[in-house]
Amino acid sequence: MRQAGRSLPEYRASRSSGSILQAVRDPALAAEITLQPVRRYGVDAAILFSDIMVPLAASGIEMDIVAGKGPIIQTPFRSERDLARLGTFHPETDAPYVAETVKILVSELSVPLIGFAGAPFTLASYLIEGGPSRSFALTKTLMRSDPKLWASLLDRLADMVLASLRSQVEAGAAAVQIFDSWVGTLSLRDYKTYVLAASHKVLTGLQDMGVPRIHFGIGTGELLGAMAEAGADVVGVDWRIPIDEARLRVPGRAVQGNLDPAVCLAPWPIVASEVRKVLADAKGLAGHIFNLGHGVLPETDPGILAEIVALVHEEGRADAEQDSFRTGP
Amino acid sequence: MRQAGRSLPEYRASRSSGSILQAVRDPALAAEITLQPVRRYGVDAAILFSDIMVPLAASGIEMDIVAGKGPIIQTPFRSERDLARLGTFHPETDAPYVAETVKILVSELSVPLIGFAGAPFTLASYLIEGGPSRSFALTKTLMRSDPKLWASLLDRLADMVLASLRSQVEAGAAAVQIFDSWVGTLSLRDYKTYVLAASHKVLTGLQDMGVPRIHFGIGTGELLGAMAEAGADVVGVDWRIPIDEARLRVPGRAVQGNLDPAVCLAPWPIVASEVRKVLADAKGLAGHIFNLGHGVLPETDPGILAEIVALVHEEGRADAEQDSFRTGP
Repeated sequence: MRQAGRSLPEYRASRSSGSILQAVRDPALAAEITLQPVRRYGVDAAILFSDIMVPLAASGIEMDIVAGKGPIIQTPFRSERDLARLGTFHPETDAPYVAETVKILVSELSVPLIGFAGAPFTLASYLIEGGPSRSFALTKTLMRSDPKLWASLLDRLADMVLASLRSQVEAGAAAVQIFDSWVGTLSLRDYKTYVLAASHKVLTGLQDMGVPRIHFGIGTGELLGAMAEAGADVVGVDWRIPIDEARLRVPGRAVQGNLDPAVCLAPWPIVASEVRKVLADAKGLAGHIFNLGHGVLPETDPGILAEIVALVHEEGRADAEQDSFRTGP
Repeated sequence: MRQAGRSLPEYRASRSSGSILQAVRDPALAAEITLQPVRRYGVDAAILFSDIMVPLAASGIEMDIVAGKGPIIQTPFRSERDLARLGTFHPETDAPYVAETVKILVSELSVPLIGFAGAPFTLASYLIEGGPSRSFALTKTLMRSDPKLWASLLDRLADMVLASLRSQVEAGAAAVQIFDSWVGTLSLRDYKTYVLAASHKVLTGLQDMGVPRIHFGIGTGELLGAMAEAGADVVGVDWRIPIDEARLRVPGRAVQGNLDPAVCLAPWPIVASEVRKVLADAKGLAGHIFNLGHGVLPETDPGILAEIVALVHEEGRADAEQDSFRTGP
């Protein structure tokens, strides 16, 4: 899960006082931060250290990313005129550091690298609200009262996201993960009316590249089927539904998740028991990637995360042995 | 929906600079604030102006309720010793102003009054986090790592909530609504393990009083069945699932909801269309109470809320006429 490094002392040391966007713009630093959790935890894949706002910032939208709060947009998106401010996003010229980071990582990693971007809805919500929101009132109001402008905005964002992900894959990323973190605020009806087309554009626009496409959001129990339909190969789910139930909602797709990150703050025996519950739910499922159900909480003890990875690997090996015993040599 | 008055100028004038707890402690003022949205909107029931923290504040827990933020607890609940600080809650002596407000209202209202309280989980989350939270990390950690202390805390809170609601009904409330606003952060498994018993204690503890028990939370799509099982007659749902789908998840119960409060910020034709969608979803359902799916947003235009109430009444009358036409005289 992204932000896996956030709880590491070496991450805090590397980041020091610079902003996250400054860190992303420095390929050596961004690569180092990507590698830190891989070294510590021995996970089976790395996820590019980045921020969902990178393409927007690189195309000239003025913003601050405030620690513990999130992106704050200087002049939020409110009307037709703001479309002009968006411009287009050319990864090679606007954000060459991203592909450069990917290249460094691919040469250094012994596990696959997952590319990373935000989905159009979540990006639009930050642009319109001007920052994080609980009600997404301004976003939903624009979406409903000016569906044409909304569709143009989402389409433009889809183009930016797609360009960013294609360039990450071209540089060597072996999979992509698209975060629609806040889309769970919508009903299925609204998702289909206002969001699906743009997410579909991003996901199907990657099809020819032949890399697995992971699509994630939180509180998306009702949307999982539609998120799969949008073109995901793997749907990431939070802890609110059992992983086997999630799998039923995304026929033919794999699922990723879904340990509650808050579990990781409990003493180890409880963490182990909760990890085993997820694995038990997933038992026999074709296509399950063990993961947290949302980002690592900053106060998490890195030691616990290392133990989780070790436990999942151990249980996976035990399962594989049992299967080969059952099947016979 | 509670907080219906929050967008009214007369509410802001009445509240002026005092805290919400001060307003609740003044029966004439609390009654006036309860009446304001009833006068404005012509709704079919009133909901007691109060705050979920009232029993806790009245039993001696030091707190501030910060406008736009929520309750801030001076010394959060963290260990066994904190149980002693909770004390017991005697509505007659600790918060006599609540029953007094109810009595004023019952004598003035021509519609039923709904009593009001927070549910044990949501109250515990404020006590433990010390304020609002996104991750509920401290709450979940205590819940999982000290299930005995957690159960004692929830049981004590259930007693307080039950005492408060019983006294509201004794004073004349015709129904009760129990807000478990944040319980949607839990999986169904965790809800059943850690929360159901306490909510059940509150809801079944009201059974002999013969008033409808409404139980509400947001993001509770996966929990609706269990919230009904806890002893609710009516389950309140947010906008994330269609109201007919919600009804299927709570067999034998009525449902309340579920217009997205953010809809109310759009121009009237859009609001009307969204209201009609909820009514269409609910068509033919035995037991639907039209409502918002969460509290009124402060920036809502009161005129829009009045139009919504009028539209729902009008469509309800049209339906009734059509039914009587179909059935014949």
